[in-house]
Amino acid sequence: MQKLYYGVAYYDEYMPYDRLDQDIQMMKDAGINVVRIGESTWSTHEPQSGVFDFTSLDRVLEAMHAAGIQVIVGTPTYAVPTWMVKEHPDVLAVTPQGEGRYGARQIMDITNPKYLFYAERIIRKMMERVKDHPAVIGYQTDNETKHYHTAGPNVQVQFVKYMREKFGAVEKVNEEFGLAYWSNRINSWEDFPSVVGTINGSLGAEFARFQRKLVTDFLSWQVSLVNEYKRPDQFVTQNFDFEWRGYSYGVQPDVDHFEASRAFDITGVDIYHPSQDDLTGIEISFGGDVARSTKGASYLVLETEAQGFAHWVPYPGQLRLQAFSHLASGANMVAYWHWHSIHNSFETYWKGLLSHDFEPNPVYNEAKTIGRDFARLSPKLVNLRKKNEVAVLVSNEALTALEWFKLPDQEKNYNDIVRLMYDQLYRMNIGCDIVHPSSENLDQYKLLIVPALYAASDELLERLNDFVRSGGHIVYSFKSGFTNEHIKVRTTHQPGIINEACGIYYSMFAEPKNVSLKDDPFGVGEEQNYVETWMELITPTTAEVLAYYDHPHWGGYAAITRNEYGEGVATYVGCLPSPAIMRQVLEQAVKDAGLWGKDQAIAFPLITKYGRNEDGKLVHFYMNYSDEEQVLVYPHQDGEELLSGHRVVSQQQLTLERWGVLIIEEK
Amino acid sequence: MQKLYYGVAYYDEYMPYDRLDQDIQMMKDAGINVVRIGESTWSTHEPQSGVFDFTSLDRVLEAMHAAGIQVIVGTPTYAVPTWMVKEHPDVLAVTPQGEGRYGARQIMDITNPKYLFYAERIIRKMMERVKDHPAVIGYQTDNETKHYHTAGPNVQVQFVKYMREKFGAVEKVNEEFGLAYWSNRINSWEDFPSVVGTINGSLGAEFARFQRKLVTDFLSWQVSLVNEYKRPDQFVTQNFDFEWRGYSYGVQPDVDHFEASRAFDITGVDIYHPSQDDLTGIEISFGGDVARSTKGASYLVLETEAQGFAHWVPYPGQLRLQAFSHLASGANMVAYWHWHSIHNSFETYWKGLLSHDFEPNPVYNEAKTIGRDFARLSPKLVNLRKKNEVAVLVSNEALTALEWFKLPDQEKNYNDIVRLMYDQLYRMNIGCDIVHPSSENLDQYKLLIVPALYAASDELLERLNDFVRSGGHIVYSFKSGFTNEHIKVRTTHQPGIINEACGIYYSMFAEPKNVSLKDDPFGVGEEQNYVETWMELITPTTAEVLAYYDHPHWGGYAAITRNEYGEGVATYVGCLPSPAIMRQVLEQAVKDAGLWGKDQAIAFPLITKYGRNEDGKLVHFYMNYSDEEQVLVYPHQDGEELLSGHRVVSQQQLTLERWGVLIIEEK
Amino acid sequence: MQKLYYGVAYYDEYMPYDRLDQDIQMMKDAGINVVRIGESTWSTHEPQSGVFDFTSLDRVLEAMHAAGIQVIVGTPTYAVPTWMVKEHPDVLAVTPQGEGRYGARQIMDITNPKYLFYAERIIRKMMERVKDHPAVIGYQTDNETKHYHTAGPNVQVQFVKYMREKFGAVEKVNEEFGLAYWSNRINSWEDFPSVVGTINGSLGAEFARFQRKLVTDFLSWQVSLVNEYKRPDQFVTQNFDFEWRGYSYGVQPDVDHFEASRAFDITGVDIYHPSQDDLTGIEISFGGDVARSTKGASYLVLETEAQGFAHWVPYPGQLRLQAFSHLASGANMVAYWHWHSIHNSFETYWKGLLSHDFEPNPVYNEAKTIGRDFARLSPKLVNLRKKNEVAVLVSNEALTALEWFKLPDQEKNYNDIVRLMYDQLYRMNIGCDIVHPSSENLDQYKLLIVPALYAASDELLERLNDFVRSGGHIVYSFKSGFTNEHIKVRTTHQPGIINEACGIYYSMFAEPKNVSLKDDPFGVGEEQNYVETWMELITPTTAEVLAYYDHPHWGGYAAITRNEYGEGVATYVGCLPSPAIMRQVLEQAVKDAGLWGKDQAIAFPLITKYGRNEDGKLVHFYMNYSDEEQVLVYPHQDGEELLSGHRVVSQQQLTLERWGVLIIEEK
Repeated sequence: MQKLYYGVAYYDEYMPYDRLDQDIQMMKDAGINVVRIGESTWSTHEPQSGVFDFTSLDRVLEAMHAAGIQVIVGTPTYAVPTWMVKEHPDVLAVTPQGEGRYGARQIMDITNPKYLFYAERIIRKMMERVKDHPAVIGYQTDNETKHYHTAGPNVQVQFVKYMREKFGAVEKVNEEFGLAYWSNRINSWEDFPSVVGTINGSLGAEFARFQRKLVTDFLSWQVSLVNEYKRPDQFVTQNFDFEWRGYSYGVQPDVDHFEASRAFDITGVDIYHPSQDDLTGIEISFGGDVARSTKGASYLVLETEAQGFAHWVPYPGQLRLQAFSHLASGANMVAYWHWHSIHNSFETYWKGLLSHDFEPNPVYNEAKTIGRDFARLSPKLVNLRKKNEVAVLVSNEALTALEWFKLPDQEKNYNDIVRLMYDQLYRMNIGCDIVHPSSENLDQYKLLIVPALYAASDELLERLNDFVRSGGHIVYSFKSGFTNEHIKVRTTHQPGIINEACGIYYSMFAEPKNVSLKDDPFGVGEEQNYVETWMELITPTTAEVLAYYDHPHWGGYAAITRNEYGEGVATYVGCLPSPAIMRQVLEQAVKDAGLWGKDQAIAFPLITKYGRNEDGKLVHFYMNYSDEEQVLVYPHQDGEELLSGHRVVSQQQLTLERWGVLIIEEK
Repeated sequence: MQKLYYGVAYYDEYMPYDRLDQDIQMMKDAGINVVRIGESTWSTHEPQSGVFDFTSLDRVLEAMHAAGIQVIVGTPTYAVPTWMVKEHPDVLAVTPQGEGRYGARQIMDITNPKYLFYAERIIRKMMERVKDHPAVIGYQTDNETKHYHTAGPNVQVQFVKYMREKFGAVEKVNEEFGLAYWSNRINSWEDFPSVVGTINGSLGAEFARFQRKLVTDFLSWQVSLVNEYKRPDQFVTQNFDFEWRGYSYGVQPDVDHFEASRAFDITGVDIYHPSQDDLTGIEISFGGDVARSTKGASYLVLETEAQGFAHWVPYPGQLRLQAFSHLASGANMVAYWHWHSIHNSFETYWKGLLSHDFEPNPVYNEAKTIGRDFARLSPKLVNLRKKNEVAVLVSNEALTALEWFKLPDQEKNYNDIVRLMYDQLYRMNIGCDIVHPSSENLDQYKLLIVPALYAASDELLERLNDFVRSGGHIVYSFKSGFTNEHIKVRTTHQPGIINEACGIYYSMFAEPKNVSLKDDPFGVGEEQNYVETWMELITPTTAEVLAYYDHPHWGGYAAITRNEYGEGVATYVGCLPSPAIMRQVLEQAVKDAGLWGKDQAIAFPLITKYGRNEDGKLVHFYMNYSDEEQVLVYPHQDGEELLSGHRVVSQQQLTLERWGVLIIEEK
Repeated sequence: MQKLYYGVAYYDEYMPYDRLDQDIQMMKDAGINVVRIGESTWSTHEPQSGVFDFTSLDRVLEAMHAAGIQVIVGTPTYAVPTWMVKEHPDVLAVTPQGEGRYGARQIMDITNPKYLFYAERIIRKMMERVKDHPAVIGYQTDNETKHYHTAGPNVQVQFVKYMREKFGAVEKVNEEFGLAYWSNRINSWEDFPSVVGTINGSLGAEFARFQRKLVTDFLSWQVSLVNEYKRPDQFVTQNFDFEWRGYSYGVQPDVDHFEASRAFDITGVDIYHPSQDDLTGIEISFGGDVARSTKGASYLVLETEAQGFAHWVPYPGQLRLQAFSHLASGANMVAYWHWHSIHNSFETYWKGLLSHDFEPNPVYNEAKTIGRDFARLSPKLVNLRKKNEVAVLVSNEALTALEWFKLPDQEKNYNDIVRLMYDQLYRMNIGCDIVHPSSENLDQYKLLIVPALYAASDELLERLNDFVRSGGHIVYSFKSGFTNEHIKVRTTHQPGIINEACGIYYSMFAEPKNVSLKDDPFGVGEEQNYVETWMELITPTTAEVLAYYDHPHWGGYAAITRNEYGEGVATYVGCLPSPAIMRQVLEQAVKDAGLWGKDQAIAFPLITKYGRNEDGKLVHFYMNYSDEEQVLVYPHQDGEELLSGHRVVSQQQLTLERWGVLIIEEK
């Protein structure tokens, strides 16, 4: 990337009247230098099968180019036109809920050859049309692609072939997946039942893995088509999204971001987050860390909220804070979904930069200041390199497995544990990367955080033991190591394999009711001294006990332990503790690992992040995630505050207005 | 109507043993002078296809006639016999939930020609049988007719034809409904998908409008059949019902009462309401106002509760209070559903006047006093004429649109806003009519109350502006004017079009959290000084601001405004306020409009209503909706309290016993 | 039975590796003398249709026999193999939710002839293989058999035949079931609709009765097959279960335990119950009382929890307390589900005696003490005879009827009322049997407790009147006698028929809101002086009023009454009272009946039960269901505390440790 991009999704085809020129003028006023177009346009560009009409595409490209605004073109395959479904109803995914219905986007069977035939044709037609246009800087394939729970008969056949390829013999599947249970044995491949009704968590989780592979395969296929056309100066990206809780919460269950992003030149994501009094920046940080970590490089925020929902409308200053927060995590683009607010259909209340009246409004006016600053500071903030010494290990397999074997209250899932740990790191200003089971660069970190690694291969756990043995630090949560990659519970001491590095074992666990840690070992106070949901009854072998349970019968068991193993240290949290306890455990681990530094002098709501820019200089972002003015002492080398151009000296006291941001480039 | 009717639904066919004579004797003892029969009898009167048996009909007509009790005969088409469904399973409606199942009533596709064939045959046979019987005063077609969500393939075809008829070209639909969104464009009528899965609110709302038209068409068709037979002295009515929340709550989503009632001679309704400590009379008043307003005339309460459910069993006095409350709203008939309590099947716990043992009981005994008074006072209370100067504008279109675009918490819907406003009018004894978008008599009112008119044509909004310009007063709630009749958000300033009369605009809105009105401008006290769910960030142009939000960032925006426009005044409530705030806003509007009168000296739980009787005299009802005795000063001309026969003079202090009622006819 | 059995379910086919020898050694260490095998093994023993492989069965039998452990072999028919469903998808039950899906157990149509063909074949093959093996002491047919809501077209045909057989003419059904309601009349057998969609509670309840008969028939058929093979010294049993609320709560809705158990030699049940701080022993007692009462004999606890779920892991002492609690209720076997903890599939967190690591753990270690004591005390505790003078009358018909006609809040069902009454008896140490509508031994009891006998034949109610007339005591709850066996409400005074013995009547009922009993007649204090959910407005004829409602309008009605009738007394509780009130009513009834004895000197958490052993000696169990040490005075004859061997004298003070148990055999 040559510069920072400030963008919007632009839907010419949704406009209630022709206003391309006015829109472009208002974009230019706001410093918008890129638009993303095309992802929902199939029915516009191919109104009937084989009849193509790219008029609106052409005119938008022309007008944008004339205005110096660059364009990312999306392949329009994630929403299928009416004619296709009318002619071929079977392009709709059959899911565990039954036959599909036309209406929503993302309802296709992404393995259906009819769908693939039409998808290929429109992609090729569109690429031919746009590839040489000077406005086009890149492509997005499809959008927020997932497998849409496709599970019809044809997908079941594919799954059986996948299983035979992977396991060779049914007997191997029977053994590894425990199919004798409830008489589920498959004694001949022909007997393989649809897994839609399975109650076997191993089989169900394998199907989920297979479904994630369908996504990777589908996206790779689209990229290979686009690559046939794209110019060397153009990129291909995808808009990945996250576990959705009304906002981008955690690891995406249905896509393996690390696998699926391989095919792309650059990773793109959408990040939506709470706002107003609930704006913390955590989702911006988490989503950014995932995106950056997939390729160890800068990434694109292809969508984030402008006004968004009524409960998201930003307070003055928040839009600006959010934009720079993305940059602080290593983004090279911040693009809003979307330019205007849609007048019909479904997402009328997911508002854009402009309201339905297309007039300037307070949020748009704030965007103008951001656009100006992006343009001005682009050389200093683009392609920021970040180097972290802490990483959080996340796993789609563990996530899926914990869906099959839920935590007792069924309210908390894998991502709650990920976030319990990640959030505390964020709040103490520990920058981190995200790694996954197939990451080969673990040794570049000093401290690994491992939430609920419930399903993991022996190989991975041995690798983690090696990591500690060689001097690394790890903090594990409960449930880690319990099953292998086929969700088969280990028959050895628990936590499986890692018990060696952790110096503990347990064979029993309970659901805590009114359980705290004995004598409040972390000094968190009565209110926060609790554990919930899960408690493993741990006996240390070589570990030091950091906390015992306070319980009339199980007070002799350890709750949290710390073990020196080889050159390193493994901490094990055998229960789901309060955030305050987790914070203390992680703080101690960070200190143990020698990573407690100057940035830890401040904490949430004061957030700091840093990176090294193309001039090789360190750039520090300071962000105030609160409705009150905050003061801090700048601890690094003298530098320049880039937004104001003021000089800042080390140890200078700085004031951050509510929802304010400062960016200091060291000299 | 010649007299007041006091009635019951009577189900000879449900009786566990033959007791027609005893029942009639007990009815006569209670003053019952009309029974409603027939609506669930298809399987009784046509035990096999084409085999008719009207024995029980004949005998009931004979016996009633002999006893001087008149009869309303229902066409038995809302519950189909087993043989029909066994022979033609496709008469059952296919709904978004799938194929139908036999068992309940109201499960047919009311457009299915097989069903219509059989329905016509039984209607004609039955009419031939009963039309000349002297006991029969009228007919009810079908019962609580709705569309039952019929949405199968045949209905989809009809809908496409309806759309082509209405819009002419697909491109017009694409434009007006924004079908480009998510690639939903329909580029050929053949591609028109079933709308069952649509995510397009415009299309979904149009389908709902089409479904309501099916109800209107079906009822008109039945009426045309009955009209072929009925005598000039007989009437045709329908039993309309309301949005159901375990009782009759608000505007019926699935029927346009104003359109559907055109075909009928007289409007009938059923009204069920909370009782015991929760008896307020509001549902009696609201349902009555709707029924009366459909034709500007007296109406029939074809069903209301006697004992009803365990939580409805009336306290002593309540049955009587309820009966006269119906009359106070302009009813000419009060009929209980139902005479006895059913011993089998489904509604065993929806008890009638009699319990399962058929013996006199306290509720039946109270009915006896009502029957006596109805008979005695009939000449003075029948055909009461009511003239109100306030009207509430309700809209099925707005209701449906707000189902597609729900309020944030998804707990409150259109009817909650209607009731928030209506209830306060009721509680301050402001009698009102109900009007709807096609009402042509708006100018007969001085004050219009307009709750959440979310979807409305330009024409309607212009008409409302004219109304104000010409001296009318309007109170709008938030969300009014936001979209046109196709649920397309207006691209102009909001509130669309009416912003002119309101003298305000807004382009942003938020979800209030802990938001109140600055400085409690209505003096409602801390407890009631809140707004919830929705707040529009309003800027006045010419309006006076009645209330600002109390909010750290949005305190500069107006919440409630008042604007003088032409000769009139438009008040706009840009948020969902507490009942107490709404009460104050409405009280001020009533006073502004010069409508604050003598009846406003008392308020809920003391309710007063009035009308003019056939002698041209004003009759005032006073009702005590509380468990405690109440005192009031009678403010009108001297008159006679009709129940006691006592003379009442102006300014006399009157005492109302708990759940008591007084009826004073002015001299 | 010759001895007490201490057992486990053992799943050789689920083992992750071959460890039969180690398992057997650990079993022997724990005193396990019986294992239950086979119920989920169909896909193992018949890997392809007609191909049989009993290797694992043989080897387990051999190894167990060698170790002196006896075996109960289950027919493997409750979980069908993949090949069967792949070849014959229609073996899966079609339920009201639609077509079945392969995966879970208990998904078959138990009337499907293909399923029955295969089931018969595997049963015969298996019986031939094992019948002569010396290790085999008995058989279990199928497992937790129910009807799985099978309701497909073939089942509907069977139901019509059943109805014709039972009622003869459709007109009889129309009359008795009130099918005229909502035009549901069936005027020809060919018109009989599927009852899946019925809204007729009489018809729905009859179908439920028919479905329970399917279970009885299916089990009888299996027993008849097994009986062809079994040796005279072998028994056949079934594993019945109970209404499931996450544990065994009450009467099983889908099986008539009394009918279904007739075919068996001995009744077996599974009982799962809350544990840790929620361990009360009530479910152990209730399930045991049902099981014992089906045949008036000792029974088998074929499954109960060892570790179970995380929220069930027993505190030290609880496993032991539980085991002896089962014996105290008359069990001859206590078997855990299951030996080990399963490593794959679905029930991974339903842990066995052993954890997933197969190593000794605290629960297993406690089991070792139990096994030792069972073996040692077997001669003194086996075949304990219990004779109770109180019985609780339960009824599947009443249960089903109350599902169709739910209590107002829809949260409490029939079993809540059963348990409200049963629990209070338990807590005051009143041992009781369970009887049902067809029990012919009512006269052996002095006091009957009758919860919510909503649906009952005239004959039964007359029999209950006779019982009182002849000197018996009965306590009825509200809703008793309301309908006949076809859920037709009685047209007589309520409570139907029993109003004669109760000396009361009512025809109205209401839902109490803030209602208490006037003047707290039972002295339960303000907190507990409430009634909820239901109140009948009772007028006494000859009855004494024990309590009036405290209500502003209905204070003149009785809530609880007591009537002397003939030689006996009938108490009627016309509302759902607090547990404390119910406790007082029952205590008074027990005293009235002359049954208040020495065991009533203590109460929960101190529980005592007794029986007479094979030596004819009385054995008293004392159980402390609390986390605190308790003291009691032993009131019976001198004896020996069997666990310790200590001598105990009458009036001696005994100390029970927390969760402790003492067993005293009188001299």
